[in-house]
Amino acid sequence: MKSNQTVKDVGEQGLLKKLQPFCPRNIVGDDGAIVSVNSQEQLVITTDVLVDGVHFSDRTTPPETVGWRAAAANLSDLAAMGATPIGITVGLSLPGKLTVTWVERLYQGLTDCLQRYQTPIVGGDICRSPIITISITAFGTVASHRIIRRSSAQPGDAIVITGTHGKSYGGLQLLLNPELSKNLALSEQNPLIEAHQRPKPRLDVLPLLWDIVGRTSVAGMDSSDGLADAVVQICQMSGVGAKLERSQISFPSSLLKWMSPEEALYSTLYGGEDFELVLCFPLNLAEELVKKLGNGAVVIGTITEEEKIILVDSQKQNSPQELTLTKGFQHF
Amino acid sequence: MKSNQTVKDVGEQGLLKKLQPFCPRNIVGDDGAIVSVNSQEQLVITTDVLVDGVHFSDRTTPPETVGWRAAAANLSDLAAMGATPIGITVGLSLPGKLTVTWVERLYQGLTDCLQRYQTPIVGGDICRSPIITISITAFGTVASHRIIRRSSAQPGDAIVITGTHGKSYGGLQLLLNPELSKNLALSEQNPLIEAHQRPKPRLDVLPLLWDIVGRTSVAGMDSSDGLADAVVQICQMSGVGAKLERSQISFPSSLLKWMSPEEALYSTLYGGEDFELVLCFPLNLAEELVKKLGNGAVVIGTITEEEKIILVDSQKQNSPQELTLTKGFQHF
Repeated sequence: MKSNQTVKDVGEQGLLKKLQPFCPRNIVGDDGAIVSVNSQEQLVITTDVLVDGVHFSDRTTPPETVGWRAAAANLSDLAAMGATPIGITVGLSLPGKLTVTWVERLYQGLTDCLQRYQTPIVGGDICRSPIITISITAFGTVASHRIIRRSSAQPGDAIVITGTHGKSYGGLQLLLNPELSKNLALSEQNPLIEAHQRPKPRLDVLPLLWDIVGRTSVAGMDSSDGLADAVVQICQMSGVGAKLERSQISFPSSLLKWMSPEEALYSTLYGGEDFELVLCFPLNLAEELVKKLGNGAVVIGTITEEEKIILVDSQKQNSPQELTLTKGFQHF
Repeated sequence: MKSNQTVKDVGEQGLLKKLQPFCPRNIVGDDGAIVSVNSQEQLVITTDVLVDGVHFSDRTTPPETVGWRAAAANLSDLAAMGATPIGITVGLSLPGKLTVTWVERLYQGLTDCLQRYQTPIVGGDICRSPIITISITAFGTVASHRIIRRSSAQPGDAIVITGTHGKSYGGLQLLLNPELSKNLALSEQNPLIEAHQRPKPRLDVLPLLWDIVGRTSVAGMDSSDGLADAVVQICQMSGVGAKLERSQISFPSSLLKWMSPEEALYSTLYGGEDFELVLCFPLNLAEELVKKLGNGAVVIGTITEEEKIILVDSQKQNSPQELTLTKGFQHF
């Protein structure tokens, strides 16, 4: 008798597995779903649900920040698939006692982020609920030959990150523990807090990739759940491994004011929410992209045939470490 | 000082008005939003949020029914715009103590309805919450010249309904008050309960309309919020009025087993959730459509120039009544 199993018993991954039979296999699994609109163009759709007390709280996130981050996370999912946004819908469940100002500030944050990327709010629904729940669906289009998937990384591909990781996690720590800021100049604090509160989806990378995707296929995803998570997901979905060069994985030096170098590396790999892209394609083209992007974009390693992810430090002759995905954030 | 106004103070309509400045004016207002994909084809998107205890409860709605109705409501919004569905996404917020079986039964109901219309679940998100919230976004496509809008009804147009109203409301009453069933045969109960629990979005009407939209424009919407609501919305958005023929507005005769004819007419006009289409276009074409549809499809009246909606009874020489929209269901 398994019929009394609860959602908590099976966890998020377990529940997703049980619901898989209800969804077509071929269109689920990446950051967003892909649906054909016509032969040249694909529609990419992604959905996120945010719940008060689970995904945000008044301590670290004023309503403008909740809005900005919700918009950014969805646009980042589109960027991760190579898609240009065309609009989002917003479904809100709100307690009657919530102030109108709170809702207006939420929408202000949403539109502040969306306007940077010329993306309109095209619809939505509002209803009553005891708890604030924000459900966003974003959709965009991508030319069929420009789709970025997790599953197409090839042995020999370079692994590129589009910017520095560890900033958002550093910012979150400063917001949760204000005493940490004492040893930091404002010029050290602000970039971290900005990275956490107003992350930028890397839609700006797409036009630079269009030249590349004409010459080779690009695999990848975003690093919203962490850099390590992205590398592991890409390797698992592509049936390959990776060799990462530790000295190439940099983090903001300000982290070292309250962390050991090992802790800072861990935060950089597992902290999450940096919303950079992790992309895999041939080295000569990767170096071109890195040069054009600047600002922390770098080749951090190579895709390998053996299905194992190792972290080597070629400068220090340490023995290589194996990178495993620690249990991801379980939502139940 | 208005800054302490709550969501309850301003109500759903008041809140929507305050959020309007954040959304582009031209793409919001119909059953769904319209976004251009290319010059021939438009993408239609619609979102619904359902909250446990507000939109459904275990008394009248087992999880399969919650799922079916949620899918049907969204597909009906697409049908109301003339759009053929291409997929839906499902955002779920669930308490950890909910059984997995409940969630599987919800998905069973969703897919039972969706499969009738070849519509896949293409993505979603699951997260933890103290209260069950189901957020569905459906999207479909429509050829630009086939879009059905609320705002294009013309004086002289016939007003067509695609089927009988009042059935869903009758079914709800039977479910809430089982003692009412005592005087009804099963063959009288079942169609009402079926109409409430498994409503059918009228996507089947669209191919019949394609021939008509080539010859004239079609205005309309669905009757999910009631037949009266649909007529009032169309008239308001089009800046016109309507003259409805009372004898053409039929309802299931079984309603008369526990209602007066006046109550039955009221339930038929205001009950809601019948998910039929209310369409406006020239009479000769309207009569063609009614003939093809059968099953309760009928011309119920005519669009008039004067912005007033009147209900006449030409068989009984009663004085005409003015149809007003009673205050709609306020969600706060």
